[in-house]
Parts: sequence; structure tokens; C-alpha cells
Amino acid sequence: MAPYHCAIMQDTFPDSLARIVGASHVLTGDDAAPYCRDWRKRYQGQALCVVKPGSTQEVAEVVKACAAAGVAIVPQGGNTGLVGGSVPNDDGRNIVLNLQRMHAVRAIDVANQTITAEAGCILQNVQQAASDAGWLFPLSMASEGSCTLGGNLGANAGGTQVLRYGNSRELCLGLEVVTPQGEVWSSLQGLRKDNTGYDLRDLFVGSEGTLGIITAATMKLYPQPKVQLTAWAAVPSVQAAVDLLGLARQHLHAGLTGFEMMGQFALSLVDKHYPQLRVPLYRDTPYCVLLENADFEGEQHARERFEALLEAAMEQGCVTDAIVAENLTQAHTLWHVRESISLAQAEEGLNIKHDISVPISAIPQFVQETDAALAEHVPSVRIVNFGHLGDGNLHYNVQAPEGVDPARFLAEQEPGINTIVFDAVHRFGGSISAEHGIGQLKRDTLPKYKSPVALGLMRAIKQALDPQGIMNPGRVL
Amino acid sequence: MAPYHCAIMQDTFPDSLARIVGASHVLTGDDAAPYCRDWRKRYQGQALCVVKPGSTQEVAEVVKACAAAGVAIVPQGGNTGLVGGSVPNDDGRNIVLNLQRMHAVRAIDVANQTITAEAGCILQNVQQAASDAGWLFPLSMASEGSCTLGGNLGANAGGTQVLRYGNSRELCLGLEVVTPQGEVWSSLQGLRKDNTGYDLRDLFVGSEGTLGIITAATMKLYPQPKVQLTAWAAVPSVQAAVDLLGLARQHLHAGLTGFEMMGQFALSLVDKHYPQLRVPLYRDTPYCVLLENADFEGEQHARERFEALLEAAMEQGCVTDAIVAENLTQAHTLWHVRESISLAQAEEGLNIKHDISVPISAIPQFVQETDAALAEHVPSVRIVNFGHLGDGNLHYNVQAPEGVDPARFLAEQEPGINTIVFDAVHRFGGSISAEHGIGQLKRDTLPKYKSPVALGLMRAIKQALDPQGIMNPGRVL
Repeated sequence: MAPYHCAIMQDTFPDSLARIVGASHVLTGDDAAPYCRDWRKRYQGQALCVVKPGSTQEVAEVVKACAAAGVAIVPQGGNTGLVGGSVPNDDGRNIVLNLQRMHAVRAIDVANQTITAEAGCILQNVQQAASDAGWLFPLSMASEGSCTLGGNLGANAGGTQVLRYGNSRELCLGLEVVTPQGEVWSSLQGLRKDNTGYDLRDLFVGSEGTLGIITAATMKLYPQPKVQLTAWAAVPSVQAAVDLLGLARQHLHAGLTGFEMMGQFALSLVDKHYPQLRVPLYRDTPYCVLLENADFEGEQHARERFEALLEAAMEQGCVTDAIVAENLTQAHTLWHVRESISLAQAEEGLNIKHDISVPISAIPQFVQETDAALAEHVPSVRIVNFGHLGDGNLHYNVQAPEGVDPARFLAEQEPGINTIVFDAVHRFGGSISAEHGIGQLKRDTLPKYKSPVALGLMRAIKQALDPQGIMNPGRVL
Repeated sequence: MAPYHCAIMQDTFPDSLARIVGASHVLTGDDAAPYCRDWRKRYQGQALCVVKPGSTQEVAEVVKACAAAGVAIVPQGGNTGLVGGSVPNDDGRNIVLNLQRMHAVRAIDVANQTITAEAGCILQNVQQAASDAGWLFPLSMASEGSCTLGGNLGANAGGTQVLRYGNSRELCLGLEVVTPQGEVWSSLQGLRKDNTGYDLRDLFVGSEGTLGIITAATMKLYPQPKVQLTAWAAVPSVQAAVDLLGLARQHLHAGLTGFEMMGQFALSLVDKHYPQLRVPLYRDTPYCVLLENADFEGEQHARERFEALLEAAMEQGCVTDAIVAENLTQAHTLWHVRESISLAQAEEGLNIKHDISVPISAIPQFVQETDAALAEHVPSVRIVNFGHLGDGNLHYNVQAPEGVDPARFLAEQEPGINTIVFDAVHRFGGSISAEHGIGQLKRDTLPKYKSPVALGLMRAIKQALDPQGIMNPGRVL
């Protein structure tokens, strides 16, 4: 493209968008910069402009203008993603369509147990609106103070309650979407059953903005539990953790809302960098498990159920020691330890991050074989193994050996270590991206591990719905 | 097509399929006839032949042969559908691809809580295999003795436990599918989290065989409850039933596995045609509700929870009288009354059937307005109103006035009454097919009530995945 032509485009296209959304909602230059870099500062791009529509109709008009001009669109919510899915590339020819101005909770229907909110609504605000109405919206994750409902759905975000309530997809009953042609499709009625054709909703959920723009969603609400109890158990092996999960499901059934496994080294990093958290029980055991039990009857009932589970687990040998939080403060502290692993490993220095899943039954063998393969590849390598065992999802991160410079380790070892880990995941029938998505980060890796038939189907769908290729190009496919 | 050419085709194409699956598994003439008519005898077609492959590989080869010859395929499981989705049309040029020979339970993975079975596996056999392993497979419906898992998924079947466990879609973790090009795509690993691209699984689920052929599936298992209690409550209005549902969710949360509403006229038909069932509590109340409570602790705990709910409901005025089954026999009898409504209305004569859903909160007004509109349209018309209120799904059937010939009523009134009912459903944001699907039955009605944008997206997907149009043509779209 000639610079002259480019200059004209930069002058006029943002102007035409300003006529749709108002000049103050079209950002360029320095104003646009913060929207062009991800929060972890791994991706820095440039946009023709950042446009912030205030309504579904404005989104549709912006998309129509982009389709007519052949300008590609990067949809963006809270920009908290981990795979570079919501920041532009660096050619400066795409626009960022940021949905934060569309943040209304449109409706709460108590009898239908649903909440309808716009895509730009911060997750915490959706939770709060549900709670104010006396109900639970169970989607929850570390970024909930800044991530948005639309981003959650675009990425099919998981979080800490998936075991009981499912991923974002399972919580969603309907969407409002602007198609790549600027048409509006809505299924916000909150129906629990509707067999009138293909499941368009679940096609848009998890498509990372490559098939259309989610502008609003109707989500499920649940009764609020009376009490939530948290326990912390030392387990002698990964297999013991899997056995404990089976027992916990039998004992607590739908009451089991969290089941997190944490390896000794991961916990030692928390202890080292945040000693004030006083990580419990971790010194004499290879793994610990955090369990959460939501109870609808009351504290005593919850405690009895929990204690019966832990007794049975100790008898069976899958737990060697355990504590149940005595009060909410203690419970928060236990969760705080779990959630500090990410920061503690950063304090230790950059590492190679994974977000993988395998069938739960395969986790013990996966960990054993992959630990061994990595130790052979890099002697004294350190594994930060932790995650949502109840969902078969581990953040199986790889830290440099003690004394090795993390940056150099990353630069030299990342491709080789990724290959070892992803090959193992693939051998066990797993996923190289359990909850973070593909984005830019794993786009080039995906074809190596995804079936060619699946990729062919995905490409056919992308071509069918977005033949111009203007929706978040270069992501996923 | 000239008769001569047709004769050649009839001679040779089944022969070529026989070379794939064996001659004894290709049926023609009288042998094929039972597969060409639906069990309610509403659809009678003709097939070039019926082919019964014994493996996924054979399905793939049959599909490739059909694609090469341009012969369309009607996939068929137990042939228990209600919308003519699995029987051929009457031109005799399509084949029926029946999956009943593929009936293996391939695997049960207790630690992963999954069962993998082939498409032709009878639903009851999936349930039994799960139960033998000590787990619950919760999909359950009247046809479970003859419907198949593949059919359940192709139609996204609902049933009696949707309120707690979801439709077939929500129970499914992965599929094995033969595409319209005869390629095999598999996601049977049983992952609970996998964000590596578009949700192909849910696109095939509920597509009624128009996008590919489901050959196997991995489904979720759940812990078996210790005890199931059933209650029967008289409620003074539809609104009271909705209020009771809200209360029941708050009291029983995940223990509430069934919530069925039945109108007085529906129950009077059961009483009239099956007096031995002794329908309880229905004479002095416009509606009754059947509730089911699955409990994981024991009989006493379940009874206390149930009684606390019913007491609160009586205090609040949303229940006027109630009984809790004293034992399993009584519980079965209550369910038997509920399930006899379909047969009882048939004894009374043909009627106009509906399978609609609206948001649960809108049900009271929907019923009030539609009852009134129908009474105005056909004075003394009788409404057989019953269904899965917990899912917003009613089988809102319309019976001729007493003394009017049912056949004549059907012939004269069906189009007009469908219009009144579907228009009302549409006005309340509902679905004209909550759980039965579209098939042939509602294909021509769908465009009137489905958004043109949704239809456009569906057509684009169909064209992208099946450009030849050989998968179950004339169904859904």
C-alpha cells in the first residue's frame, strides 16, 4: 500500500466511524496506544483507530462500514486475555472495537433464573447484580475485576467453579451477536430448550471474535449457597489426588465447587516469596489439594459432610493430613495461597507457561512421564505444577533450574520444552489450550496438534460466515 | 431421471454398498420397508436401500460411495423421532444409513466420569452400563428402550431430567463424526476443557443428521443418588406452579431433578381412560405438579428437605395440597400417571400437538392468553396442557371439543390453531420446537418464526459443510 493512500485512509475512515459513535469515542495516536498492548505486555500492536460504540446498533453500523471499506476488526473487552487475541497486529490497518461502553445489566429475570448483560459489563459487576437480586452468578476468575462478559464468552473462559457450574459456554443461554456483515442476531430470551436448528450460540462462544462480535448475553443464575467451606489436604501422589476427587464427588456431589491441586515446588515458591501467607502442610508431601464445599443447609451440615469425606479419604490413604478452614478469613487465606502461585513464580523469574488438559484419569501418568522427560531434557528443571484438577486442567509451567538465568532459559529452551509438553498432551488425548484459547500465541502451533479434519471444518465455517476475513484476522486459524 | 437409468442404479449402487458392509446388511424391498416409516406412521417413504454398517470405517466408506454417486443419506438410529427426521422421502433415491449395528459401549472411565458408546447403542443400555459401574447416566425419556444415543444427540433430546442435568448436548463431552465427505473427526477423549478452536461438537449435536453422521460419543456420568423421592402437589394456578419451582430450587438446589406440571383436563383424561391409576388430588385444582428430589444422604434427610419445602409452599399459598410417595411403588405410580397423559389423549382421539418453550417467567401469561385465544377461535376447545415446567417446555396440545370428530377437527383446525399457538410463542420469545426438533414436520413453518439472520447463518454452515447437499436433505432447512 502506498503511503499516500494510507494517509488518506487514516484521515477518513476514523472520521466515518466518528459519525456513527461520536468523535469522542474514536481514539487515535497516544489515546489508542493502551488498547493496542496486552496487559502482560507480550503483544504490542497498532490500530488505525480504537472505536467504542455505545449500542448494538452502533456496533452493527461500525461493522458495516468496516465491511464496505475492507477494514479488519479486533474486538476487545477488558483486554485481559492471555493469548494476544484482543490486540491488533502491528501494521496499523485494523481497528480495535472496544465494547467497554456497553456495560449495562439489561435485565434480571428471577423466575427464569437468568441475567442479561451487555458484552462490556465487567464480570464482577455481573456477579454483583446477581448477588443483589439474591442469586449466584458462578463464573469467577482472578481477572474478574477487569475482564468483561463478552470477553469471557469470546474466550469460553473457565475459572475456579467449572467443576460444578461449567465453563462460560455452559452458563450461557443466549447471545446477541453482530455478524461480519453487520447484521444483528439475538437469542437473549433465556430459553432452556430450543431445538429449532443449529447451535449458533456455542459456535460464537469460544470463537475469539473471529466469527462475529458478541454484544450481549443471557446467562444462568443459581441459588446462593448458605455456607462455603474450604479444606486443604496433603496427598501422597497425583494418583491420590485423583482418587480424592472421585471420593469428593461421591460424598459432596453438586456441593463440590472447587478442587485445585498444587505441587510442592509451586507452594514452596509462595512460601519463599510470601512467607506471611504461611502455606500449610506442604513441606512433607509432594502435592496439596484445596477443596471447596458449597452447602445449602448450614455450617454444621457442611462441616459434617466435609469431615466424613476427609475421614474416608484418610482411611483410604489418599489424604495424609488435612485442615478445614474454621472461618471465612481462613478460607480466604487458603484461596489466597492458591492464587499467589502465579505471582510467586513471576517473582522467581519468567517461566514457560502451559494451560493444558488431559482426561482426569490420565493425569497421574501424564505428570509422571512428562516430569521425567523434562528432567532428562534439562537436568534439575523445576516444574510449577498446579491447576484445576477437577476439570483435568493443569497449569504445568516449567521454571529454569536454580541459578540459571530465566530469560536465557526461556530463549533457549521454550520451543524444545513446548514440544515435549505438547507431544505428551497429544499422546494422552489432551488439549494444548484448556481455557486460555489460541489467539496469536498458539495459532501456529495448533495445526501440529489439531486433527486436519477439525481444522478443515473450522476453516470452512470461518469462510462461510466471514468470507471477507475481516473478523479478528490472524487469530485461531 | 429415465426409468432405465434408475433401474441400473437400483441394481448397482446397493451392490457397491454391499461390498463395504456385507450383502446381509443391505436391505431392499420388503426388508427395507420398516425402516422407511416412522413409528407413529405419519411418514412413509421409500429408500434405494437400507444399509447397516458395523463400524465407523464402514460408515465412512458408505458416505464416500454416496458422495461419489451423488446419493443422499438419511441417518437413522432407533427411528423414534417425532418430526420425520429419520425416514426417507418417497422418491426412493436416498439411502437409509441405520446405525443399530454399532451398539457397543466402548469404554467407561470411572476416574474421568465418562462413558463412551457407539451411536446405535440403545439409551437404556447406556444407562445400564453406567449403573453397572456404579454411576448414573441421567438422560431419560419414554422411548429409552428403543431410541439410540446417536439419535438422542442428533436431535439434542431432552427428557425428564433436563432441569438438573441438561439436554443431551450438556451431557456430551465429545463426538466421533463422519463428515459429508466421508472423513472421520473424533473428540472422544472426554476432556472437560478444550479451547482449541470452534465448538464443532455442539454444531453436530442437534443438527438432525444434516451436517454429518454421529458414530460415537463420550458422555458425562454422575454419582448415583442414595434415594429419590417423588411428591405430587395441587397448585391453584400456573403462576403458583412457577412460584413453587422457584421455592423448590432454593430448598433442594441440585437435588431437584424433576418438575412436571399437568393441567386438570390432561389428568382427567388419564382418570377417564386409566381409572386404575387413581390420579391423585386433581379434581379440585386447575393444575398439579410432580416434583422429584434426588438425595445423596438418605431417606430421612430427603423427606425432611421435601417436607420443609412443601410446608413453606403451603404457607406461601402456592400449594393447596400435597402428598409425598411413601415408597418406590407409589413414586412409580405418580410418574406413571404423568407418562400416561400421552396415551390417554390418544384414547380420546387425535389432537393437535405442540412442543413449545417460553421463558419460565412468561409461562403464566402465555397460558392465559393462548387458552383465551383458542377458546375464542374454537368454543369449548379442550387444552391438554402438561410438560417440563422446570425447563419452560410445555406440550400444549389442543383436543377437539367434546362430541366433535377428532379427525375432522384435525383436518379443519390444525393450520389455524398452529398459527395461534406459534404466534403466541413467538410473541413471548419462545421456541416452536423445544425438544423434538424440526425434521420434515416443521421445516416449512420454521422460516416464519426463526430470525432471517439465524436462518442465513444456518444455510451458510450447511452449504460450507455439505456443499453437495447429501446429508438428510429436506430436513431442518
